[in-house]
Amino acid sequence: MPPRYLSFRCSVPWLILLLQALLLIRSFFHFPDVSDTYSSSSSYPEFQDVTHMVIFGFGFFLMVLRRYGFSSTGFNFLLFVLGVQCSVLAEDLLVFLTGEQNQVDMESLVKAVVSMTAVVISTGAVLGKANPVQLIVMTLVELIFFYMSRWINGIFLEVPEHLAVMHVHLFGAYFGLALTSRFPEPPPGLDKNRSTPKSELFSVLGTVFVWVFWPSFNSILAESKKVEAVLNTYLALAVSAVAAFMLSALTSKDGKFRMAHIRSAVLAGGVAVTYTAHCKHPWIAMILGLLGSVITILGSHCLQRCLNPALKLQDTSGVHFTFGLPAVLGAVAAVVLGVVERGIETRWNELSSLGYAAFYDIGAFCQTISTALITGLITGLILNIKLLKAVHVSKYFDDQLYWEFPHLSVGF
Amino acid sequence: MPPRYLSFRCSVPWLILLLQALLLIRSFFHFPDVSDTYSSSSSYPEFQDVTHMVIFGFGFFLMVLRRYGFSSTGFNFLLFVLGVQCSVLAEDLLVFLTGEQNQVDMESLVKAVVSMTAVVISTGAVLGKANPVQLIVMTLVELIFFYMSRWINGIFLEVPEHLAVMHVHLFGAYFGLALTSRFPEPPPGLDKNRSTPKSELFSVLGTVFVWVFWPSFNSILAESKKVEAVLNTYLALAVSAVAAFMLSALTSKDGKFRMAHIRSAVLAGGVAVTYTAHCKHPWIAMILGLLGSVITILGSHCLQRCLNPALKLQDTSGVHFTFGLPAVLGAVAAVVLGVVERGIETRWNELSSLGYAAFYDIGAFCQTISTALITGLITGLILNIKLLKAVHVSKYFDDQLYWEFPHLSVGF
Amino acid sequence: MPPRYLSFRCSVPWLILLLQALLLIRSFFHFPDVSDTYSSSSSYPEFQDVTHMVIFGFGFFLMVLRRYGFSSTGFNFLLFVLGVQCSVLAEDLLVFLTGEQNQVDMESLVKAVVSMTAVVISTGAVLGKANPVQLIVMTLVELIFFYMSRWINGIFLEVPEHLAVMHVHLFGAYFGLALTSRFPEPPPGLDKNRSTPKSELFSVLGTVFVWVFWPSFNSILAESKKVEAVLNTYLALAVSAVAAFMLSALTSKDGKFRMAHIRSAVLAGGVAVTYTAHCKHPWIAMILGLLGSVITILGSHCLQRCLNPALKLQDTSGVHFTFGLPAVLGAVAAVVLGVVERGIETRWNELSSLGYAAFYDIGAFCQTISTALITGLITGLILNIKLLKAVHVSKYFDDQLYWEFPHLSVGF
Repeated sequence: MPPRYLSFRCSVPWLILLLQALLLIRSFFHFPDVSDTYSSSSSYPEFQDVTHMVIFGFGFFLMVLRRYGFSSTGFNFLLFVLGVQCSVLAEDLLVFLTGEQNQVDMESLVKAVVSMTAVVISTGAVLGKANPVQLIVMTLVELIFFYMSRWINGIFLEVPEHLAVMHVHLFGAYFGLALTSRFPEPPPGLDKNRSTPKSELFSVLGTVFVWVFWPSFNSILAESKKVEAVLNTYLALAVSAVAAFMLSALTSKDGKFRMAHIRSAVLAGGVAVTYTAHCKHPWIAMILGLLGSVITILGSHCLQRCLNPALKLQDTSGVHFTFGLPAVLGAVAAVVLGVVERGIETRWNELSSLGYAAFYDIGAFCQTISTALITGLITGLILNIKLLKAVHVSKYFDDQLYWEFPHLSVGF
Repeated sequence: MPPRYLSFRCSVPWLILLLQALLLIRSFFHFPDVSDTYSSSSSYPEFQDVTHMVIFGFGFFLMVLRRYGFSSTGFNFLLFVLGVQCSVLAEDLLVFLTGEQNQVDMESLVKAVVSMTAVVISTGAVLGKANPVQLIVMTLVELIFFYMSRWINGIFLEVPEHLAVMHVHLFGAYFGLALTSRFPEPPPGLDKNRSTPKSELFSVLGTVFVWVFWPSFNSILAESKKVEAVLNTYLALAVSAVAAFMLSALTSKDGKFRMAHIRSAVLAGGVAVTYTAHCKHPWIAMILGLLGSVITILGSHCLQRCLNPALKLQDTSGVHFTFGLPAVLGAVAAVVLGVVERGIETRWNELSSLGYAAFYDIGAFCQTISTALITGLITGLILNIKLLKAVHVSKYFDDQLYWEFPHLSVGF
Repeated sequence: MPPRYLSFRCSVPWLILLLQALLLIRSFFHFPDVSDTYSSSSSYPEFQDVTHMVIFGFGFFLMVLRRYGFSSTGFNFLLFVLGVQCSVLAEDLLVFLTGEQNQVDMESLVKAVVSMTAVVISTGAVLGKANPVQLIVMTLVELIFFYMSRWINGIFLEVPEHLAVMHVHLFGAYFGLALTSRFPEPPPGLDKNRSTPKSELFSVLGTVFVWVFWPSFNSILAESKKVEAVLNTYLALAVSAVAAFMLSALTSKDGKFRMAHIRSAVLAGGVAVTYTAHCKHPWIAMILGLLGSVITILGSHCLQRCLNPALKLQDTSGVHFTFGLPAVLGAVAAVVLGVVERGIETRWNELSSLGYAAFYDIGAFCQTISTALITGLITGLILNIKLLKAVHVSKYFDDQLYWEFPHLSVGF
């Protein structure tokens, strides 16, 4: 199919070049002097952790498909470096829209990296199905929509800045889900979307990285109570990892462990505790970690057997139950905890203001999910226009379409 | 052997659930508010390093067996997340027993993670021979005995807190050794306990992680002289790595290097310098690193040829010479250095007090080893009761017993 | 060829032992008390990053050859641990020569680690062609010459200390290049210098590590403006990674990506921005990242097709275009930026002093390259004397010559 290959040469490099040129021009005009705006380098190790987690951790976490190893890490890397720059630009616009002082410093880079997690998660849902052009367009569109959603949350629903950014898992998972519903399902006989023990092992390697660095991810944007965020996230992750092994043995045939379960559920605690990482009581974080793990493994069973076939969804690396469901749990828990906390503070006297606050919290949560679903669907439609030359179903999950192999023995 | 598989479903998940439920209940009642007890987050990067080292480093370090890759990392991860929580609980009890103020903060978590190293090392000795139920029971029992030994050291032998914790290598190695003597030897024809170049490569990956993060491990609990600990450990590790290559070429056939030697001996310096990491003279650390490496490689020859067959020991990943012998060396060196240092201080006048102090140091060291050996033997007897359903010798070293492989091609 | 194997036993261990003994003796006499000279541990996380980058990152980055995985990581590790100690010694001598107070602390270790990067880069050029004895001799000789070049730069050309150290990429690449020209070319039919998808994947793993830790590398020696160095390096790396994907798709057949291109060009931005990491304008760093990537990929085409065959060079892992060309670009950019900056400051009035300063900068750059090339050639001649028993061409790129494989299935 030579015309298709040539078409990538005519599109991918020029698209990237155009974007990069725009970003360079903009950085020439807009980037303020770094020295003016930077305060302290105290968050540098955490920043390093988060970058490592997103590039290395997620890059290898996604390496489950047996013939898609190069693309999993490679495209994740490409989207990250492109997206972070776009994200800094979008951050700039957002700051401009909210009328604050324009500034670019470590913190703005941190927010850009964290926001990119949404894109990385969405990528997991269309892993092996979207070509690079589609992925790049998706990155841009998703970042714009995510910043829009964040802006609405910040302005109209009074969500604090650092919590608004933390909607990444929710947004990323449901955006990816809506997106993947617009891609045709692979034929059932296709065995390229299987994993092998070797690819699973690389994926475990990535998962461990994501797990270890998650406390940094949850604490990096917290203005105060960083230590609480670290400790709570750590405990939640530990409990969810324990529960992952337990549930995996309970739900599989013969009582054996299944690596795919464990990979997903081990991270559920970190996602579930995102919104409440700063809370005072570690046992709440631990319970959230446990529930996150339960919801992930049960969700993976129900969704893969009932919901996905019915909706004709094919969520390649299971982002719905790995990131979507625990994030919903976390958001609901945050609302409940918020009500209880404020209730105890006011001795349950000011019920109207209590309901008002809860209403805002629920609003932010519903707004994020619905924006994600709607914009995901729209993006899915955009991505399947003829100009972007979607990959044929029979060519799904294959590195050979995108990578040159100057080797004799091909395949992972 | 379906009944055996089913038995895991009936035991593993419920055992984990029970433990996790206990830990949750206890955290509900006992965990103080985090904000009360936390002082500074200065040790967060080191804490991250140590977690990374134990989960990722040791997880992949143990991945030497060709058909045991999933279990090596997976079970290491499970034991870690379970053990850290139990360890925090045990830490709590210890603090309660010594009559101090109850507190849970980053430092208590750090101690829990460091203590878990003992369990991880012991796991290496029974790698591939114990089933998950046995491993979980072992984790619990070993942690309790290790805390007991630490408590005796602290109360009766006046060992400072951070040094008492540093007995992990000694305790872990000899506990594991005594434990493995209670497991039947695998038949000589079994080739599943061999390594392949691929599994060795993953193991090297883990070893490098452990090596790089070791200075953080040795310095994290030091109250003062952190820099000395880092520098001394770094130099000791460098010297022992150099010596590892040298001795490997000297002792092998044809003067080639042997990866298994290098993997063990490279870490010997870090272990040997554990007790004396804070000393003033870097050359002492360097000599200890050199001796550690020598003792590891010579030990591996002697033990594998003479002692182990005689005692019918089968120490799968060589924890005796990797961690045990260098730790003994380090303990002896600490006693000698302590005597010399105090001797120089007092100009060798107060010989009686000198002998008294040395007696205490030797006592702590002997107490740790003998407790480890005795409790290891007892635990080995406990683990082989019928209830825990030990694995049959022919099923040793095999992932398939514990993991579901939904793949066509099975094996690492 | 048994005599050759035996010869390694007779040379490698004793050479290492001799070196290590010298280093120990010297540390006994010269190493001051650590406590006297150490100021603050603030750079410890960055130090950890850099060590990790050099040992783990480069070790796996070099793992491209299909049958040379053990040697790539193993020898990199050996040379690092040996070289760091020699480097501390050389640092000592340099400090003694420049008449300053002798001190050994974290900073001296940092400089030693950074200097070792030159050796690691040179190793890449002779990867698979030099035997361990040659590599060890090379390490020693190169370190001495690099310190000599640094000393000349510091004393005669007034280059600030931290910039003089940053010539590592330039020195390492051209030294390696001159060195490899003295090694006979492998026969064209040899397929052991190919990569496989698996070895490429490990190499990608290493590359990602190097990429993530590069900002620490560029900022660790900066006395002030650490944040600028981090941000600029990060942006330069991001742009060069984007450009790497773009150019790889443009220059390859069928518009596919080629992993080898991406691996090299992704790091070009970090190298190119080395000398100007502290500059005020992020867009300069971004443009340098872009140009670095362009020069790397175009260079790899031109060099591999035209220059290398003409000069009979065989640069195994492409250090010339990966590190050499971007470093030249960076050095030229630093001269130009220096002139422009000082010109704007003095309003272009003091043209003579401007020319004088530029002359010094160019001098430092030319001196480094020419010293590297000349000393590289000399070292190449030294390494091929009969005493060091060079490997025969047919035995190139093969782990089996150096490593014992107690396995049935041999080969990566």
